Amino acid sequence: MSHVLILGGDGYLGWPTAMHFSARGYEVTVVDNYFRRNACTELDTGMLYQIPTLIERAQIWHEKTGNEIKVIIDDLAQPEFMRSLFTGNFKYQFAVNKKYTGIPETVIHYAEQPSAPYSLYNYKYADITLINNLRVTNNLIWAIRDYSPETHIIKLGTMGVYGTPNIDIEEGWLEVEHKGRKDKFLFPRQAGSLYHTTKIMDTDLEWFAVRMWDLKVTDLMQGPVYGVETDESNIDNRLKTIFNYDEIFGTIVNRFVVQSIVGYPLTVYGQGGQTRGYLNIKDTLQCIAASEKTPADKGELRIMNQIMETFTANELAELTKKVGDKLGYEVKIDHIENPRKEAEEHYYNPTYQGLQDIGVKPHYLTEAVMKRMFEIVGKYKNNIRKDVIFKGVKWQ
Amino acid sequence: MSHVLILGGDGYLGWPTAMHFSARGYEVTVVDNYFRRNACTELDTGMLYQIPTLIERAQIWHEKTGNEIKVIIDDLAQPEFMRSLFTGNFKYQFAVNKKYTGIPETVIHYAEQPSAPYSLYNYKYADITLINNLRVTNNLIWAIRDYSPETHIIKLGTMGVYGTPNIDIEEGWLEVEHKGRKDKFLFPRQAGSLYHTTKIMDTDLEWFAVRMWDLKVTDLMQGPVYGVETDESNIDNRLKTIFNYDEIFGTIVNRFVVQSIVGYPLTVYGQGGQTRGYLNIKDTLQCIAASEKTPADKGELRIMNQIMETFTANELAELTKKVGDKLGYEVKIDHIENPRKEAEEHYYNPTYQGLQDIGVKPHYLTEAVMKRMFEIVGKYKNNIRKDVIFKGVKWQ
Repeated sequence: MSHVLILGGDGYLGWPTAMHFSARGYEVTVVDNYFRRNACTELDTGMLYQIPTLIERAQIWHEKTGNEIKVIIDDLAQPEFMRSLFTGNFKYQFAVNKKYTGIPETVIHYAEQPSAPYSLYNYKYADITLINNLRVTNNLIWAIRDYSPETHIIKLGTMGVYGTPNIDIEEGWLEVEHKGRKDKFLFPRQAGSLYHTTKIMDTDLEWFAVRMWDLKVTDLMQGPVYGVETDESNIDNRLKTIFNYDEIFGTIVNRFVVQSIVGYPLTVYGQGGQTRGYLNIKDTLQCIAASEKTPADKGELRIMNQIMETFTANELAELTKKVGDKLGYEVKIDHIENPRKEAEEHYYNPTYQGLQDIGVKPHYLTEAVMKRMFEIVGKYKNNIRKDVIFKGVKWQ
Repeated sequence: MSHVLILGGDGYLGWPTAMHFSARGYEVTVVDNYFRRNACTELDTGMLYQIPTLIERAQIWHEKTGNEIKVIIDDLAQPEFMRSLFTGNFKYQFAVNKKYTGIPETVIHYAEQPSAPYSLYNYKYADITLINNLRVTNNLIWAIRDYSPETHIIKLGTMGVYGTPNIDIEEGWLEVEHKGRKDKFLFPRQAGSLYHTTKIMDTDLEWFAVRMWDLKVTDLMQGPVYGVETDESNIDNRLKTIFNYDEIFGTIVNRFVVQSIVGYPLTVYGQGGQTRGYLNIKDTLQCIAASEKTPADKGELRIMNQIMETFTANELAELTKKVGDKLGYEVKIDHIENPRKEAEEHYYNPTYQGLQDIGVKPHYLTEAVMKRMFEIVGKYKNNIRKDVIFKGVKWQ
């Protein structure tokens, strides 16, 4: 049985990923320091529903499926703790079989502060974002170098690293011709937030590690994810992933659905021509699974753009309104002053073929898919706090 | 009188820079946490001569010239301390006039762990390098954003960020044409050490700050510096800058001169075709001074390549041998197994016109210049510890 170690296993994507691999017969270990939960509490962001602790989740998972997800609660930014995961010099907080599972064949690295507005909230949160994200990545490449260079790292990046360039966005790399000579480089990156900038830096660290130490790394440049349910979360209601609907941790589609349900006008920033690539949470799981099955080679930094389709903010608002109106919600759309500094009309033509080439079959954001989101979120309508949706974090 | 704040004012370049500005009528404040000295002690790297503390140096400088350099000893990686420099909420460890000088017009940022071998010595030093370098830069851009967006930041980068690409190296930026469309990006970067990678990341942070907050930033991509004396250090022997000659903190020319003097064969790594750009420490001071006089515009990230000429490692070894032999040292050259992972023969054609365009007049590494280095270093021959020169830190 292959062993998958998931860093950041308590998050919006981490926990569904853990269940996904566990359901398919993998040995799964999850690590988290509850950063996301604690930040939600500290910032009073609201959550659509309460979620059990990671230990309770693993217990419920075991009861319902007989499968084991081992849990460790600790801080991966600490080098010694990261290294202990490869030596067995730690204790599980939850495990059916307490014995060390051993060195993982695959590490899936989600253990980062994932919010752009959080990273620009103030200088303290900027510092936390920078330090957490880069230390975890650096600790990981060193631990892999020192203990297990054959282990495949799958890290989540973001499409946001590319910004909105005036040229087509390729999957990670660009052949450049200059004054009659040629070379191939990482695709140019220029991000729109400090969080996104840490993802540029993560890739720089990985690229260094791959060139120097011949590691195997897959970096998945993901767009904003939407959705609530996965096949595994449907087994028991308490297995659902964390769902934020505020400006700081809530991604745009999830947030628009919540806003529609409570009669809060959809907050489109500025003109709304901002185009981005999006994907369903079920496709995140497919992408990770396909990447695990076809690891990067030794000395390869494989970069794939993890989106399934692109929309402007206006298109997302219109779709949400169309579906919401049919369900009787009378959705309003507001164009508010853009708190971000970004182009509101721009060229955007990203390539995203790599993941489909290794077997991913996209789910698209159809009216039916959005209707299903309305149905699930609607059940928790009474939990939604309108006052925490918009905080007005400014980029400048 | 313009006020210059120097972060990392105790280092090889920081202290000469402080004296340079002080001698020219600027108000000068220096900050340092003695990282470099402490690391030299911890790693037992040896130093050509002992240097006074930063406070003693400032006292001697004041006695000899009547000029004041204010001194603060603290850790710039701490956000609150960095911010205190812009509010006056701190105490000087040395100052003639204890009153807060006020917000600086220019910040010169040298406060980074500057050694590639140190950054790859082990995972702990890698972590220290990453965290120190990035936190200081991030704390600085936030403090400037919050308290003084008009202040000009001059940061030292490194030519090492570019690596050895197969295309000509431009000064920071590259116009790219791709599938019939054009855009301008940061010149592609791919560094050969973790330290150099942190400098890539510094530039990413600055570029973010410039785009979002309209800061004024000059990033100087410097090559390895050589030399001992500056006009100001000649005022009193105790004002000389720190001089390392080991593999970790000693730059190649300085190290080769020391090795020649004690009969330690020059350690050329591999074939010795590695080409880099170099400059005299006096030219570092010229470059910083010229940059201060012509600040970057608001919202401009100005990047200049701070080298005056290029040499292969073999050429430097041959020059050192030629000068050393004339002085009777019988210099030997050893081609040792390369501890680094780098191309030993490669294309290298960097542009470096920007600093000369703003008035810098290069000193070149002539036989006379090197002979003078031999003379100065020769006075301290008895202090040189042959056993600490080469530690064999491996990149892999």
